[in-house]
Amino acid sequence: MLSVFNILDEKTARNFQFILEAGKLKSVLRQTHLPDLNRRENSAEHTWHLILMALALKDMSNENINLEKVLCMLALHDLGEVDIGDTFFYDQARDDAVMQERDNMISMLSALEPDTASHFLALWEEFEDGGTPEAKFAKALDRFHPFLGNLENGGESWRRNKISLAAALHKNAPIAEGSAWLWDCYRRLAEEADRIGFFYREAF
Amino acid sequence: MLSVFNILDEKTARNFQFILEAGKLKSVLRQTHLPDLNRRENSAEHTWHLILMALALKDMSNENINLEKVLCMLALHDLGEVDIGDTFFYDQARDDAVMQERDNMISMLSALEPDTASHFLALWEEFEDGGTPEAKFAKALDRFHPFLGNLENGGESWRRNKISLAAALHKNAPIAEGSAWLWDCYRRLAEEADRIGFFYREAF
Repeated sequence: MLSVFNILDEKTARNFQFILEAGKLKSVLRQTHLPDLNRRENSAEHTWHLILMALALKDMSNENINLEKVLCMLALHDLGEVDIGDTFFYDQARDDAVMQERDNMISMLSALEPDTASHFLALWEEFEDGGTPEAKFAKALDRFHPFLGNLENGGESWRRNKISLAAALHKNAPIAEGSAWLWDCYRRLAEEADRIGFFYREAF
Repeated sequence: MLSVFNILDEKTARNFQFILEAGKLKSVLRQTHLPDLNRRENSAEHTWHLILMALALKDMSNENINLEKVLCMLALHDLGEVDIGDTFFYDQARDDAVMQERDNMISMLSALEPDTASHFLALWEEFEDGGTPEAKFAKALDRFHPFLGNLENGGESWRRNKISLAAALHKNAPIAEGSAWLWDCYRRLAEEADRIGFFYREAF
């Protein structure tokens, strides 16, 4: 706990301490390389960019969505990565990582009042489960955003991590559940990107 | 325009190009120094952190607010800084900077459909004008967030920029218009921070 917070009542101090702890998301680095900045993207700025995408593309969801819920879900969806790190989307151990992120999320949220903590955890779980229109759309954006980054940097992380066009199309097909429009854009852009050599190809 | 976007229809291509352009907010550096990371904070991750604060503190607004509107406003509020940079909060030339940011915002938004562009500009202007309950609350958070960062880093940017307790209290008093509760926290924490030497003091 930051020592100046000791002059506040405990509930208020814990609220601010939660906000500072959550801020560590700025140190969680992702696979996407930001070409102009010569550094990797962090999960905090990634999350802001997703939120902006949600605003610009909200009419492209397959189903009617409550935008406020989508924005809240997105704001919280990566918080479990604090102190643990991001798991690469194509990593086999991703399911274990999600369990660990959930435990971490519960531990962070314990600083908040029980009602707020339950509400935040429910939004996080709804996103992870991916069953509601809002979660499907939010997850579609979360899959599409690094794709845009990879297009921008010429496929650098695809080749470095040996990701082929077929692997990308297979892993990202669930985008269609949130937005058929976005999945159509993905497929067409990915095929064009492959044509110009952005994806990994096995040498024969 | 990213060359792969040429295979899309123009409206879609311009949407994605807007999203990429907006992403340059990740390169706009602010005065706040992130102590654990040994670097300055950028406006994209700052914006995410504000959005998270809005979720955690939404009940602390003086007036009833539409949370969706607050989140949308916050997501867009710094976009005008792209390619221009952030103006330090205590800078005298801040009014000129806001005019320049508005022109920049209009130019960026011209990539979008007119309805979306007008909606985004209206949200940006509502925030800048600061007249509605949502704008007052969003602006209070925007003032409070760097304060938290300065408490965390021991007042480094206050002393470097010669900001005294009196200057901070004077400039930040409008926090009370959005949240009397947040302003009370600010005042008490700032006085404690000054007691332990975080703020600049003139040598006598």
